Amino acid sequence: MPAFPPAIHKLVSQLASLPGIGQKSAQRLAFYILSQPADYASQLSAAISLARQDVALCSECFNLTETDPCEICRDEGRNHHTICVVESPADVAAMERTREYDGLYHVLHGAINPMQNIGPENLRLKELLTRLTRHPEVDEVILATNATVEGEATAMYLARLIKPSGIKTTRIAHGIPMGTNLEYADEVTLGRALAGRQQL
Amino acid sequence: MPAFPPAIHKLVSQLASLPGIGQKSAQRLAFYILSQPADYASQLSAAISLARQDVALCSECFNLTETDPCEICRDEGRNHHTICVVESPADVAAMERTREYDGLYHVLHGAINPMQNIGPENLRLKELLTRLTRHPEVDEVILATNATVEGEATAMYLARLIKPSGIKTTRIAHGIPMGTNLEYADEVTLGRALAGRQQL
Repeated sequence: MPAFPPAIHKLVSQLASLPGIGQKSAQRLAFYILSQPADYASQLSAAISLARQDVALCSECFNLTETDPCEICRDEGRNHHTICVVESPADVAAMERTREYDGLYHVLHGAINPMQNIGPENLRLKELLTRLTRHPEVDEVILATNATVEGEATAMYLARLIKPSGIKTTRIAHGIPMGTNLEYADEVTLGRALAGRQQL
Repeated sequence: MPAFPPAIHKLVSQLASLPGIGQKSAQRLAFYILSQPADYASQLSAAISLARQDVALCSECFNLTETDPCEICRDEGRNHHTICVVESPADVAAMERTREYDGLYHVLHGAINPMQNIGPENLRLKELLTRLTRHPEVDEVILATNATVEGEATAMYLARLIKPSGIKTTRIAHGIPMGTNLEYADEVTLGRALAGRQQL
């Protein structure tokens, strides 16, 4: 016989469908939600449905936004000559946290991954190319895809596509992370750090 | 400037308020929810509010239930002479999974924890004692609180309270977990295993 009433079963299985949440964590979360004041559950529930309802993709950069175009694309104070290409909206947030970048973004929503059947046609690549022809003021595209096999492949692919247009195409640097001892760096990273050395 | 629209910020902070979910995980979950079809978010949202709305505590055993008394308390096929005392509804589920127990439960909703200001009056202890006087057919109380300092203390406290009534009070066994090598057992567990040895 089931140890839980159906409503809890349903909640647990819904929570367990989230990435990185297993059956046990889902159960723990469900019990936590049920142990809180009723307000808590209704606020959580409302935040989920409202976010899904109000948030869409910016038609320019494909970042998540509540307005179209998004705040970043509309911001006249930003540098509209540079576009930073990233894999996901979370990467935009990571870039913004550096406070070192004031240009625009382009979110691909993934990377080329033949193993998972994700080809260039599944990404917002074509949209980037039309955006570049529509905005001749763009003079640099920074490729900030992940330092993974897929991210590297996507960057290489994009660089080859953009090159004919004559727009400067750069890749973010790879090397030893700050605060890390050299002896703990893996050989691929150290190799990249060496190859990318810069004159002081 | 914020990198996310307010609805996402709100969702992320709501998700981050769940136990064991940090800022980064909350962000990952939020992006996942937003990347799924709208149906997904509405189902998740509904499961949360419905569960909170429909689920309450059984007035007998204080387990989570949609009916009162709960399915287990109402089940005439179960052994109504034994009550197993546990700390949380998740423990009821764990006990049920063993398929070794067919008695009733009593959920304390915590354990005595002076460090967190949880005393006997914050648990469903008084309710257990009135339940025992109301149901003289109960002839054994199994103390299945956790094998932690708090769980042990709660079991000791309860045993002392129940003893005068003459009802048999037992504690679940502690020892080497199944499938474990002796050499990896900590000394407290091994000590308990030795003390609790049984004749074959």
